[in-house]
Amino acid sequence: MTYSHRIKTIFSQLKEPVDAILLRNSSDPFIDPTFFYVTGIKKGLFEGCSIVLRPDGSSHLLVSTLEKPLVPTDQKSTCFSSKQEYTDLLTDLITECNTIGINTAMTLYDEYQHLQQLIPGKKLISISQAIRNARIIKDEEELHRIQEACQIADQVMTKIPTFFSTPLTEHELAATIDHQLKQQGASSSAFETISSFGTNTAKPHYTSGNKKIQLGDFIICDFGATINHYHSDTTRTFVYGSASNKQKQIHQTVLNAQQQALNHIKPGVNANTIHQIADDTINATEFKGYFIHSTGHSLGLNVHDPGIGFAPHYQTPLQPGMVLTVEPGIYIPSIGGVRIEDDIVVSPEGYIQLTQSPKQLIEISTK
Amino acid sequence: MTYSHRIKTIFSQLKEPVDAILLRNSSDPFIDPTFFYVTGIKKGLFEGCSIVLRPDGSSHLLVSTLEKPLVPTDQKSTCFSSKQEYTDLLTDLITECNTIGINTAMTLYDEYQHLQQLIPGKKLISISQAIRNARIIKDEEELHRIQEACQIADQVMTKIPTFFSTPLTEHELAATIDHQLKQQGASSSAFETISSFGTNTAKPHYTSGNKKIQLGDFIICDFGATINHYHSDTTRTFVYGSASNKQKQIHQTVLNAQQQALNHIKPGVNANTIHQIADDTINATEFKGYFIHSTGHSLGLNVHDPGIGFAPHYQTPLQPGMVLTVEPGIYIPSIGGVRIEDDIVVSPEGYIQLTQSPKQLIEISTK
Repeated sequence: MTYSHRIKTIFSQLKEPVDAILLRNSSDPFIDPTFFYVTGIKKGLFEGCSIVLRPDGSSHLLVSTLEKPLVPTDQKSTCFSSKQEYTDLLTDLITECNTIGINTAMTLYDEYQHLQQLIPGKKLISISQAIRNARIIKDEEELHRIQEACQIADQVMTKIPTFFSTPLTEHELAATIDHQLKQQGASSSAFETISSFGTNTAKPHYTSGNKKIQLGDFIICDFGATINHYHSDTTRTFVYGSASNKQKQIHQTVLNAQQQALNHIKPGVNANTIHQIADDTINATEFKGYFIHSTGHSLGLNVHDPGIGFAPHYQTPLQPGMVLTVEPGIYIPSIGGVRIEDDIVVSPEGYIQLTQSPKQLIEISTK
Repeated sequence: MTYSHRIKTIFSQLKEPVDAILLRNSSDPFIDPTFFYVTGIKKGLFEGCSIVLRPDGSSHLLVSTLEKPLVPTDQKSTCFSSKQEYTDLLTDLITECNTIGINTAMTLYDEYQHLQQLIPGKKLISISQAIRNARIIKDEEELHRIQEACQIADQVMTKIPTFFSTPLTEHELAATIDHQLKQQGASSSAFETISSFGTNTAKPHYTSGNKKIQLGDFIICDFGATINHYHSDTTRTFVYGSASNKQKQIHQTVLNAQQQALNHIKPGVNANTIHQIADDTINATEFKGYFIHSTGHSLGLNVHDPGIGFAPHYQTPLQPGMVLTVEPGIYIPSIGGVRIEDDIVVSPEGYIQLTQSPKQLIEISTK
């Protein structure tokens, strides 16, 4: 399996032609996920490695000896074991090139400067917009990997009520979720799992702490699976014990807002319109002003993939193959919060939902 | 608790004075860990947030509304809820400054360019070396956090033989390790846990796969805990069943190399000398040439902290308060590999070992 079609897509999106594109990883966490887009490599970090891409869709990987065993046999590559060897190989590879494209959106400033010194006389050109444009539309294999990540998250989400055979702390629930994700085949959690109880659910970026579950608490579980470098990202809200009428009302309002947003997703609609619809739906109720973040983000090799989102500043029209989250919420400091989040792919007819666990408000048995 | 001493340390390391330093986070994973060094904040990512540091040790955080609940009450901060608000606040904060220090080693190229546009007329100066110099010596609270991370990893490492009550796959063992790390209080694993069996142990950067354990396999477990943004990183090698004489001999050679390296750690010794000692010890045996990576790296807010390592290109003399890993290994493709890794802090007299789980070759019972 080669990924020359992806490399050609990037080149086709360039406003100004370049002779080659060079992607270069720094050390963890400063790794450019585009490296995995153009190679399809499923495992490993490839710190300090580079890849040269050509307009004909071919590529040549410069790989450290330690990562060599992780390179697929059909990927053209050369090993280096010292900085000098790396520089020599790189210089050799791009000797005929005058202009080199760089993904400046995911390259560190010092790395860029260092590269400029390594290959003096070459003109470096930012090609980040072309990469964003290419990566924003997922191909079949990418969709397959995201679907796998979604299925793993679904399986874990559906089991959450069963984890409460004894009263848990937020941290214990997060640990159980992460373990289940790995048991279902995830290489890791997609981000630090959010497992918040009670009024902590009113803080959208709170992760987890030592709070023990109490009768009547809202529970927000927001997590995803990472598999083969792709992610899922899903949220459900539960109540421990019986939900109050107010809790049911908040949950129903968020569910309505999500459904309204989903109903309008189809090619050609601007991304910010979808946010506006979710926002308007909530603002037409007594919970006006309590939806305090955007309605969703692009999802793929990054949990927050660049280029589009359901947010006020994205006027971009939706296109088939875009994968996004849809996640309205209501956050009332004195009561708590509700968020419902699903991953969808825009289809020619509208959208296909990728996450599938039940959305109704589940009251978790306290016995 | 304020961290003005850390901010003053950074300013004291500057070669060229600046009026203020600005640290700015992009979105996950492109977060500058220095943000947590100067704030001491234990939880949260603070995507898109900035902090302005002053020579007097004071700081002012610009924080998005969503992260506001995570900011300690004694940290001076102002909330923004739009890009325009952010720009206005930033401009206001640095209006009197002519020169602004930027951590170019952990700032994306596009972020740097964007910043230059946001604050035209200000001279941006790279101050990454001063940050490296400051962060390379850990203060008491940092050491305490790293020690916590080491203790969690020790507890899990010691229990590994008990996980094999049934024969596991590499992936299942990794899932169990990660779960135990979280159960012991880690917010996450420090990096993708390495759990390799048999000849896979000969690939140092292989993580885990579907291989099931077999009698006589080497087992390498290389993992760490993250807690309050600090990390540990430790490795032990086991054998499933009885170890062969050759396996014992490889293990003993690595153990000797580590002990030789440790024996020479003290202030004033150059970091690369320690690597040379480990390398020479292995190369004086029949396993010459099978130690294929460096002997260790700095450890702290990054798993690979910048500025020093036990590697050929670091001639830097060791100083008290530096925290590093010591991890020689031998990798023979047809047999497998052995790596032993501990975390140490350089002390005035030599070093103190932070990880403490037993190092001898443990033969895991197959019953």
